[in-house]
Amino acid sequence: MSVTSALGFDAAGVAVGLKSTGHPDVAVVVNRGPLKVGAAVFTGNRAKANPIIWSQQAIADGVVEAVVLNSGGANCFTGAFGFQTTHQTAEKTAELLGVSPGDILVCSTGLIGTGDEVFRAKVLDGVEKGVAALSPEGGDDAAEAIMTTDSRPKRSEFRGDGWTIGGMAKGAGMLAPGLATMLVVLTTDAVLDAAQADAHLRAATGVSFDRLDSDGCMSTNDQVTLMVSGASDVVPDPHAFRNALIAVCADLARQLQGDAEGASHDITIQVTGAASEADAVTVGRSVARNNLFKAAIFGNDPNWGRVLAAIGTTDAAFDPYDVDVWMNGVRVCTAGGPDRPREEVDLTPRATHVLIDLKVGDAAASILTNDLTHDYVHENSAYAS
Amino acid sequence: MSVTSALGFDAAGVAVGLKSTGHPDVAVVVNRGPLKVGAAVFTGNRAKANPIIWSQQAIADGVVEAVVLNSGGANCFTGAFGFQTTHQTAEKTAELLGVSPGDILVCSTGLIGTGDEVFRAKVLDGVEKGVAALSPEGGDDAAEAIMTTDSRPKRSEFRGDGWTIGGMAKGAGMLAPGLATMLVVLTTDAVLDAAQADAHLRAATGVSFDRLDSDGCMSTNDQVTLMVSGASDVVPDPHAFRNALIAVCADLARQLQGDAEGASHDITIQVTGAASEADAVTVGRSVARNNLFKAAIFGNDPNWGRVLAAIGTTDAAFDPYDVDVWMNGVRVCTAGGPDRPREEVDLTPRATHVLIDLKVGDAAASILTNDLTHDYVHENSAYAS
Repeated sequence: MSVTSALGFDAAGVAVGLKSTGHPDVAVVVNRGPLKVGAAVFTGNRAKANPIIWSQQAIADGVVEAVVLNSGGANCFTGAFGFQTTHQTAEKTAELLGVSPGDILVCSTGLIGTGDEVFRAKVLDGVEKGVAALSPEGGDDAAEAIMTTDSRPKRSEFRGDGWTIGGMAKGAGMLAPGLATMLVVLTTDAVLDAAQADAHLRAATGVSFDRLDSDGCMSTNDQVTLMVSGASDVVPDPHAFRNALIAVCADLARQLQGDAEGASHDITIQVTGAASEADAVTVGRSVARNNLFKAAIFGNDPNWGRVLAAIGTTDAAFDPYDVDVWMNGVRVCTAGGPDRPREEVDLTPRATHVLIDLKVGDAAASILTNDLTHDYVHENSAYAS
Repeated sequence: MSVTSALGFDAAGVAVGLKSTGHPDVAVVVNRGPLKVGAAVFTGNRAKANPIIWSQQAIADGVVEAVVLNSGGANCFTGAFGFQTTHQTAEKTAELLGVSPGDILVCSTGLIGTGDEVFRAKVLDGVEKGVAALSPEGGDDAAEAIMTTDSRPKRSEFRGDGWTIGGMAKGAGMLAPGLATMLVVLTTDAVLDAAQADAHLRAATGVSFDRLDSDGCMSTNDQVTLMVSGASDVVPDPHAFRNALIAVCADLARQLQGDAEGASHDITIQVTGAASEADAVTVGRSVARNNLFKAAIFGNDPNWGRVLAAIGTTDAAFDPYDVDVWMNGVRVCTAGGPDRPREEVDLTPRATHVLIDLKVGDAAASILTNDLTHDYVHENSAYAS
């Protein structure tokens, strides 16, 4: 169950010493065709890593032969040398595969500002070893090689009517809208053209990864790539395919949430009764980003006042004095005042559900987030040391 | 040095059991005139506590006789009963002082959703005891009575040319733009009319409290009140007075930052070379609100990549690859790459200085914030318990 679940893809994960642990740190995923269609979405951050700048150019023609991904260094703010490293990574991969460098996407993750000669040499070594190790069974190795502070690999698949979607993801920290330090590779053997692939990918990420907001921080390196081999020779029903892609993305997003750095609660903030879906997302995100709310959930404290204080900062349509707030099935606030006693709320399970009914319309959206914990602070203060 | 530094003001702080510790919890500050001019600014949160709703009406005519402040309960989202509590607080104060209830401002701070019969009875008891204890030496007692998780009272004064400004503040958590769970009372014996008081107050808070962003969370109860007695009979030079009021507000803001819940670093984010002051504020605030940056500073880690990742999320005018970042006097990033080694940066002092030169213009602004610490998480997860 990974990027090699779909027909037409080979993958590999190899160790070249980018990680001090000696764990696998370079992944290669190759599309053997017959189609070489690709689509990708990228971080919305204006501070973009070199692999993002490269891949945005490479994807423009909708053709992707392979994706090379490394952990152990973000290659971001590493200057012209860093961009050359990305360029050489693509060139070397292309040379070994006998294809054009402009059809190779590159992804990197790790510390910003690192990407020296040693880094470059190791990545190029990883390309060589990775291409040599390519196999239709290499999906699991690839999923392992892209891990950073992830405690486990994230993989998913969907078996459709004669076609398959596979996927892998990494990203335990900096999860935020417009994606995260999140690298995702999706593969399918269904028959799609580039425009279809792009439309399906944007629709699916818009309601999955874009609604995962673990800590409000947007990365410089996020990339989600979809590769289409067409090896099943089946043209899928468009609705069925889109729903399947949404399901795979949502599954991977849940896995990312469940493994977020230091988190002890996986919080779903469901907003209903909104005037628009945009309002529901805005309200959900305001709560997901409120440190006081997130610290309260860590302490198993159903502090609904912090929910209302958070949504009061938005411009969404609602009356602050006519909002219902539920926590794990207990309505703790209604009509501008307390409802059920907070003692009735059990916040000890990891899965936490906050329902906010704005009572002004029919639109809804859910945002996934995590609590703010001692371990989050610890992991993110010690990351570089 | 407090609200009674200026002539024409009496104050008191009394204990009535709103705090479980038995510490003072109700403060009264009365303007003895001859002028009874007032101005106030309030939280921008749409979820407003009952005292905010009341005080916004009461300030409309620019006349303020007294301010009553309680800790131990925010009286927010307590329904119609809570609003009646605020109303009765103003009425009782007015009756005891022989003035109009509409000229009494009320401020509350503490947990949202608390404000029952017991709370009301204690606050009204506090009004009675507070008015009985009023004294021209009561400023220190008042500053103590408004403390919540503050570890020390915050007071300030400025001696002008024949006139004085005094002030007190509380607010150790939820410090954010549009103010915070921050209650501030400023007094002056200078001669000002209501329009002048309002203009000076807005100008001063705009460059002081509004640029303090400890944890990005905006409270439901923030209020800054300026009362003008005119007792010095001196009409101040407008520029001198405004600068003095800015100095007092900036002093109190620094004291709030220095006592922020759980913080171990007081961080000044200075943005220069911006195209506009608004851009400088936007960039500074994006860094101040980035949990990964804040956790890194807690760990004494000069992780400048997180600074660039934060400012990359803004729409300010700048080139992400031509920005200089300094940390405590060391330029760690320039022209899209690393500059001085991070080992040269000493982040062990509590006072932390981050300088961001956007290199596109002449505008500048500084934002004050704090680091994200284990103690912040602890204090805010245990707050209600």
